[in-house]
Amino acid sequence: MSQPKKLHLTAFMRPVSLHTGAWRYPGSYPDANFNLAHLKSFIQKLEAAKFDAFFMADHLAVLNMPLDALKRSHTVTSFEPFTLLSALSAVTEKIGLAATASTTYDEPYHVARRFASLDHLSGGRAAWNIVTTGNPESAKNFGLEEHVEHSERYKRAREFYDVVTGLWDSFADDAFIRDQETGVYFDPAKLHVLDHKGESLKVRGPLNIARPVQGWPVIVQAGQSEPGKQLAAETAEVVFCSPRDLESAKALYRDIKDRAVAAGRDGDQLKILPAALIIVGDSVEDAKRKRLKLDSLVHYDSAIASLSVALGSDASKFDPDGPLPADIPDTNASKTGRAGVIKLARDEGLTVRQLAGRYGGYAGLAFVGTPESIADEMAVWLAEEGADGFTVVSPFLPEGLDDITGKLVPELQRRGLFRTEYEGSTLREHLGLPRPKNRFFE
Amino acid sequence: MSQPKKLHLTAFMRPVSLHTGAWRYPGSYPDANFNLAHLKSFIQKLEAAKFDAFFMADHLAVLNMPLDALKRSHTVTSFEPFTLLSALSAVTEKIGLAATASTTYDEPYHVARRFASLDHLSGGRAAWNIVTTGNPESAKNFGLEEHVEHSERYKRAREFYDVVTGLWDSFADDAFIRDQETGVYFDPAKLHVLDHKGESLKVRGPLNIARPVQGWPVIVQAGQSEPGKQLAAETAEVVFCSPRDLESAKALYRDIKDRAVAAGRDGDQLKILPAALIIVGDSVEDAKRKRLKLDSLVHYDSAIASLSVALGSDASKFDPDGPLPADIPDTNASKTGRAGVIKLARDEGLTVRQLAGRYGGYAGLAFVGTPESIADEMAVWLAEEGADGFTVVSPFLPEGLDDITGKLVPELQRRGLFRTEYEGSTLREHLGLPRPKNRFFE
Repeated sequence: MSQPKKLHLTAFMRPVSLHTGAWRYPGSYPDANFNLAHLKSFIQKLEAAKFDAFFMADHLAVLNMPLDALKRSHTVTSFEPFTLLSALSAVTEKIGLAATASTTYDEPYHVARRFASLDHLSGGRAAWNIVTTGNPESAKNFGLEEHVEHSERYKRAREFYDVVTGLWDSFADDAFIRDQETGVYFDPAKLHVLDHKGESLKVRGPLNIARPVQGWPVIVQAGQSEPGKQLAAETAEVVFCSPRDLESAKALYRDIKDRAVAAGRDGDQLKILPAALIIVGDSVEDAKRKRLKLDSLVHYDSAIASLSVALGSDASKFDPDGPLPADIPDTNASKTGRAGVIKLARDEGLTVRQLAGRYGGYAGLAFVGTPESIADEMAVWLAEEGADGFTVVSPFLPEGLDDITGKLVPELQRRGLFRTEYEGSTLREHLGLPRPKNRFFE
Repeated sequence: MSQPKKLHLTAFMRPVSLHTGAWRYPGSYPDANFNLAHLKSFIQKLEAAKFDAFFMADHLAVLNMPLDALKRSHTVTSFEPFTLLSALSAVTEKIGLAATASTTYDEPYHVARRFASLDHLSGGRAAWNIVTTGNPESAKNFGLEEHVEHSERYKRAREFYDVVTGLWDSFADDAFIRDQETGVYFDPAKLHVLDHKGESLKVRGPLNIARPVQGWPVIVQAGQSEPGKQLAAETAEVVFCSPRDLESAKALYRDIKDRAVAAGRDGDQLKILPAALIIVGDSVEDAKRKRLKLDSLVHYDSAIASLSVALGSDASKFDPDGPLPADIPDTNASKTGRAGVIKLARDEGLTVRQLAGRYGGYAGLAFVGTPESIADEMAVWLAEEGADGFTVVSPFLPEGLDDITGKLVPELQRRGLFRTEYEGSTLREHLGLPRPKNRFFE
């Protein structure tokens, strides 16, 4: 009899939270962006709960919104991912450490080296979240006037991946002999010079670091565009995505796994972990109240602007404390978007102000309920192949995280849906992923 | 009455040692390049001995020597500095953390960000060793066929420094209000957009991280060429240099301090710390024996090639176990170099093999003796303004380091030449350096 399928869980983190109102939530740590002690307590809780990985988001620019909205946001200033995750590697033992690194605004030699180093430092717990950097403001911090165009970014990303993985294979796993007697430190026959000359990149190598503990750090990808899905299918081992609901998640799951198989891969070697905001309450109503409270902490000016974008119509003229008007004028904006807002307003009976808080805060997939109701939902997603697990977004910290690790995880463990002990020492072992062979050596 | 002058001590590290024979020394850890536990023990010993900083050297290429020599060297593969120092920041509390970062093969936005992040993570202990990357093999790992030319590298380095320090000043020290009541996270009036457009670099900013704890991480420079000395005089707060002896050290000390004053700086705000290999023995003879033993572990093929370069003449035809012949033919190579070799052979009575081991291992400034004799020498260097302290190079680890922290440092402390407690919490406080003002804000 085969083992029952289990969920994989990673924690998607900006230090304070992804939700722009979270830093104002009672009991939160608004200075967590630059307070290592808080982050240490977060990751140690996640490790005690046996999470697969701690996943650090990233931005390469500050000015990605108008200053009046920006001044209310904690999300764009924080520790840099490699320095933070390296520090956290020294105070943890098992949990994976996923860092975001851009293929558009960095060099493959640097990226390969830092991930290899993090993998050695952590005993095989590193993962690379490949991003092409969507924020057009980033270009201006790296000598360019214009953002690099989308298809150009994806072409470079694919080549960048080949170069980085090739650099990781610079030394055979057994290249370093370190024979004090004969004085031979490594076997030169087990050193490969990559000598890559491609369309976007030219990198000789070899990398100045031994092959990573995991062979290659785990590859993570979040793309949902066509080239993004294709890149994920060809290269990713963990896919982080944002489906609206179970139906769209199942379609995306099948699409990406089919593409992976078409690219000659085993679909099981690619784990699909949709991002989900998780709010746990003593009752479903209690959880919903927490969410309304959280959404209400997004400043109305920022919130109403986000709602207007989602509606494709200026929402600032509506009565904030009344229901969404029935006669919203038709525009050229996405009809799906508007229909979603209208459905949400009706389903949850939200006022304009509450709707605005939702769109200004976090409007993606959310599980809001009791440990039991959320475990029920997650079990369905796993059984129906909407997900292999979740990229968990905490609503506010530390309380929202404590609810997840202290209440939801034990419920999942009771049902046999989540591990009670780590399977091994490396992130690949947690995820059930094979260690890649070295392409240049047996 | 003013305090008597004290030495500053930093430890210059490649994980195993700078000396190419060190990994073969009895009791050494040949795998320290990729073994965090060893490095943790090294830095904790240095912190217990109250060293100012742990200083990590760096390379951006492997193939900087012929493969037959390379295979015997532990020096070109190791952890990457930022990931390593960040991990070590989590297991230390006071000691400074100096990382090497290249101005030629990296982006100022990345460099500014990583140092700011390390400074926040460590509570104000970061230092940036500015290098322009001398190894011509590095270019090939970053898309270039040819190494960037020397004066071009230094021009870019100067501008790079301006951009990085400008980015560190993006936010006023009190920009982050984090007022949960009003919902204002930072004061937009205290955000500066750098908008740098120079000859070599174009960077908009602002940096996506709060101003570093130290204002700016401490600036370290190692240049000894004319443009290197000038860059150091204009920007450095710690100068790491390699004078042959006290006389040349005094001249260099005076030269760099005069240049700093001419550039409008206070000479005291620039600490000159020559690199010195330190070998401690129970007697001077015992220390010398350790050194001969260490030098003998450099493979003869590599060693004799280094001696030939120093002599400007093929030394492989000499009798390895005889003295240096008296009639070495004149060549176009440096007469100073040859004279130095001849003097060394005569002063220490070394055979050709022993001389070769010296040049293949570490031929720079060295203090070899008892704790008392080395403390005597250091006191003279300090009193005569040859140095404000030393960049200590350990001959082999852990034993050679234990001798320094356990025998030499206590002797220096007994004489009042070195601190017995840290003066404060930040590296600037250890070094007696002021916290730089923000150039854009009061």
